[in-house]
Amino acid sequence: MAVPSRNLFTCLSPALLHLYDMSNSVVVIIDVLRATSTIANALNNDADCVIPVASVPRCIELGMETGGITAGERDGKVADGLTYGNSPFEYPRTFIENKILVLTTTNGTKLLHMALDNGAPEIITGSFPNLSAVCDHLIASGRDVLLGCSAWKDRVNLEDTLFAGAVINRIKSHFNMHCDSSKMAESLYLEAGEDRFGFMEKRGATHYHRLMNYGLEKDIRYCLTADGANVLPVFKGDRLVVG
Amino acid sequence: MAVPSRNLFTCLSPALLHLYDMSNSVVVIIDVLRATSTIANALNNDADCVIPVASVPRCIELGMETGGITAGERDGKVADGLTYGNSPFEYPRTFIENKILVLTTTNGTKLLHMALDNGAPEIITGSFPNLSAVCDHLIASGRDVLLGCSAWKDRVNLEDTLFAGAVINRIKSHFNMHCDSSKMAESLYLEAGEDRFGFMEKRGATHYHRLMNYGLEKDIRYCLTADGANVLPVFKGDRLVVG
Repeated sequence: MAVPSRNLFTCLSPALLHLYDMSNSVVVIIDVLRATSTIANALNNDADCVIPVASVPRCIELGMETGGITAGERDGKVADGLTYGNSPFEYPRTFIENKILVLTTTNGTKLLHMALDNGAPEIITGSFPNLSAVCDHLIASGRDVLLGCSAWKDRVNLEDTLFAGAVINRIKSHFNMHCDSSKMAESLYLEAGEDRFGFMEKRGATHYHRLMNYGLEKDIRYCLTADGANVLPVFKGDRLVVG
Repeated sequence: MAVPSRNLFTCLSPALLHLYDMSNSVVVIIDVLRATSTIANALNNDADCVIPVASVPRCIELGMETGGITAGERDGKVADGLTYGNSPFEYPRTFIENKILVLTTTNGTKLLHMALDNGAPEIITGSFPNLSAVCDHLIASGRDVLLGCSAWKDRVNLEDTLFAGAVINRIKSHFNMHCDSSKMAESLYLEAGEDRFGFMEKRGATHYHRLMNYGLEKDIRYCLTADGANVLPVFKGDRLVVG
């Protein structure tokens, strides 16, 4: 078999992003619980676009400018001044179709803007609900790949790493992978097996506990299930649209 | 069972160290291939002490000042101006007993000095050859624990994470562990099983390949084997001594 000419790396935290050259890479922004899962779901239900922003004031401002829906949470509640939260279930087709969703998240949006600042030529978002669309695109794109885990306030988290592992497990034959983080991510994914919810519980993942305390088991289960919203969110200008 | 009052965290790369409070922690410097394994071996063979330094010129300087043996490698060879390398097998008792070893390493020494600068009250070094001594001390110490992986030029590596997982697996009942990196490290350790050399090979760990290309299989095997040099290296002043 020919040696692949493309490289794949996994960056486990935004605080490690500077270590990776992304000048010819598709960067996959991964924020499994729940930003990138919710983005996939809204776009799969034909939202016009999702505009990711870093702060609540900016979310309110852009909501007024665009007529979009403002959404975001802080400490598990809809943030003051916004209208909706971070749950994928808040965005069924009957509600979100043809609408603009202005979504403020902390970890995922930060990483996305860092990737932009680092000159990434292409940025997409990934989550279990759109796992296949992401993998298909990465194989077809012709570029290197950087799987970017959003983590939690820069601390490595289990669920984003698990998703990186799922992608790697599917696409690795197309890439060189001189990257222990990628090997570890795939190990974790293989160990978890199909019952990812049970694995998160068994391992006591920090974000699992946080969301369970908010009564969000249904969200967690959705966010860990493959291909429930199988679209490809691509960042263009200032927004994510279906690619 | 009472809830433990002490915390354990794992820092997978020096570039993430700022995320952790270490004001009441034992910080364990982990540089499995091969610095901390070699340190354990030299001290187990009754070296007087090991002085870790960051640069070759400083190593030469301190070697002259102390009459110590200067050691360190760059790109797999003894560095110009130094006398010995990084292999644990270069330091048998017949050679190193009662001598000072001035050792220059990049990743491990950097992390050690970062931990010092961050006010860690206690710093020790850990590796498979001194796994039990490290675990016994962490349980007995009364402090929180920060397992610090030296990584490779700030990139997370498999072998240091694997060692963190081995420690966690032994001592976790004594600590709170609100830390996904720790859960991932333990997962990796459990997946690897007893044949850690085979696991490194199977997973294609980057450092495994680097050292195998230098013909250092014997070193890798030693560095992945538990309790071959079961001492506790403790950092005091500017040097590591048996604690």
